[in-house]
Amino acid sequence: MKMKISRREILGAGTVAGCAAIGGALLKGANVAAASPSAAAVPWTWKKMDPAEIQERAYQSAWEKIGCMYGACESILGTLADRYGAPYNTFPVDATVYGSGGIGGIGSVCGTVNASGLLFNLFVKNQNDLFALCSEMSLWYEKASLPVYRPKKPKVDIEIVRSVAGSNLCHISSTKWANASGYKVLTNEHFERCNRLVADAAAEIVRMLNEYDAGNMAFKQKLNDFSQQCLSCHGPGNTTANVASGMTCNPCHENPH
Amino acid sequence: MKMKISRREILGAGTVAGCAAIGGALLKGANVAAASPSAAAVPWTWKKMDPAEIQERAYQSAWEKIGCMYGACESILGTLADRYGAPYNTFPVDATVYGSGGIGGIGSVCGTVNASGLLFNLFVKNQNDLFALCSEMSLWYEKASLPVYRPKKPKVDIEIVRSVAGSNLCHISSTKWANASGYKVLTNEHFERCNRLVADAAAEIVRMLNEYDAGNMAFKQKLNDFSQQCLSCHGPGNTTANVASGMTCNPCHENPH
Repeated sequence: MKMKISRREILGAGTVAGCAAIGGALLKGANVAAASPSAAAVPWTWKKMDPAEIQERAYQSAWEKIGCMYGACESILGTLADRYGAPYNTFPVDATVYGSGGIGGIGSVCGTVNASGLLFNLFVKNQNDLFALCSEMSLWYEKASLPVYRPKKPKVDIEIVRSVAGSNLCHISSTKWANASGYKVLTNEHFERCNRLVADAAAEIVRMLNEYDAGNMAFKQKLNDFSQQCLSCHGPGNTTANVASGMTCNPCHENPH
Repeated sequence: MKMKISRREILGAGTVAGCAAIGGALLKGANVAAASPSAAAVPWTWKKMDPAEIQERAYQSAWEKIGCMYGACESILGTLADRYGAPYNTFPVDATVYGSGGIGGIGSVCGTVNASGLLFNLFVKNQNDLFALCSEMSLWYEKASLPVYRPKKPKVDIEIVRSVAGSNLCHISSTKWANASGYKVLTNEHFERCNRLVADAAAEIVRMLNEYDAGNMAFKQKLNDFSQQCLSCHGPGNTTANVASGMTCNPCHENPH
């Protein structure tokens, strides 16, 4: 543990709504929908779909390129493109392969969380909603026991152990699963786990966009108590205010108090 | 420090070339350039430009939406769109605002590293190159003392202290700078620092794409010795093989050996 926390007092706990507010503050005055002169304009119209219907496509697309961000984006944008054409078919979805393995294999943010941000940004109407949805998806990813999806045509037809990532980072998520399952990383079993998880994440993104578009999005996720305590001093607007984060703190930070 | 490392022996040190190979393995058999039936095809043609010429635009665009990923993408794609039109003007660049604050304010990967992945993916010809460039950019970001850029028309006209992030994560990078400068996070001074950094990162992306496109890309970055030791057991193909990461380990992990 190298991060030093410089004040010892723990004040009242923050909320994940606070994190969404942080997000909003970051984009104060910005208008997500305003197109730059040279860019195709967003938001695009969201079209309701059954979350379950895109899951096999997400899984198969993820296998096609070992692309977690790609699988989530291709299954959703590709389904919309097949049904409705433009603007959905104008997006260069192959340019989302880079999200694999936490951005080009460097183990940073999971490609499904990255995909969710891009997809929300294509469809939601303002920056507060965008940031709140990103936070909700990230905390869902951190806390869910995954993968749940069982492919219709599995590439690796075995039982896949579930694990809880506890973090939105690819390398932490994958290590947790490797340790839980006994399989090594970057094996076919590992890819099978990740690609089933892509199907779960893609369904969650669709579920959230359906709810959001219908005007009844229910935000349910909260940072855990440990992290809320950290941010009650270190978060923006508080005593120390040297940390801007909506990630769960305890996978990497101990409580020094 | 919660991550347990389960074997004590330290073997020979790995290399960042190994990380690129990991990236390549992740995408074995994939073809980045192959468009799905419904998607605009990549790669697009890269057009050489002077890294310095897009920096003020990157800085100003980043301020426009407090968008780090957006500022990097808009300055490069927008410049290409202004000069050459399609396909560069078909990309919905406003949909990259989500990368702000480590994806919707959650403090994960810095939006400039996220932008670099997307931009490389739009222009490079195969997955090995894509992953190697992502790794190079991430390590550049982790190690560089930033920001260097001095805006022509600064929004906050003060001296900005430089700091070394040591990580590609937004919240670590921002906290390092906040502690070095004494400014609180999510203040105008913090945004000034981040938006100057966007100009530095955008120039680095252009420099790399110029070199890559000319066929003389020189990969210079290496993981530090500490991280290479970790991966010499825990990395793919090694004894334990439970970690797939090209991020520097020591910001979050101590050496338990």
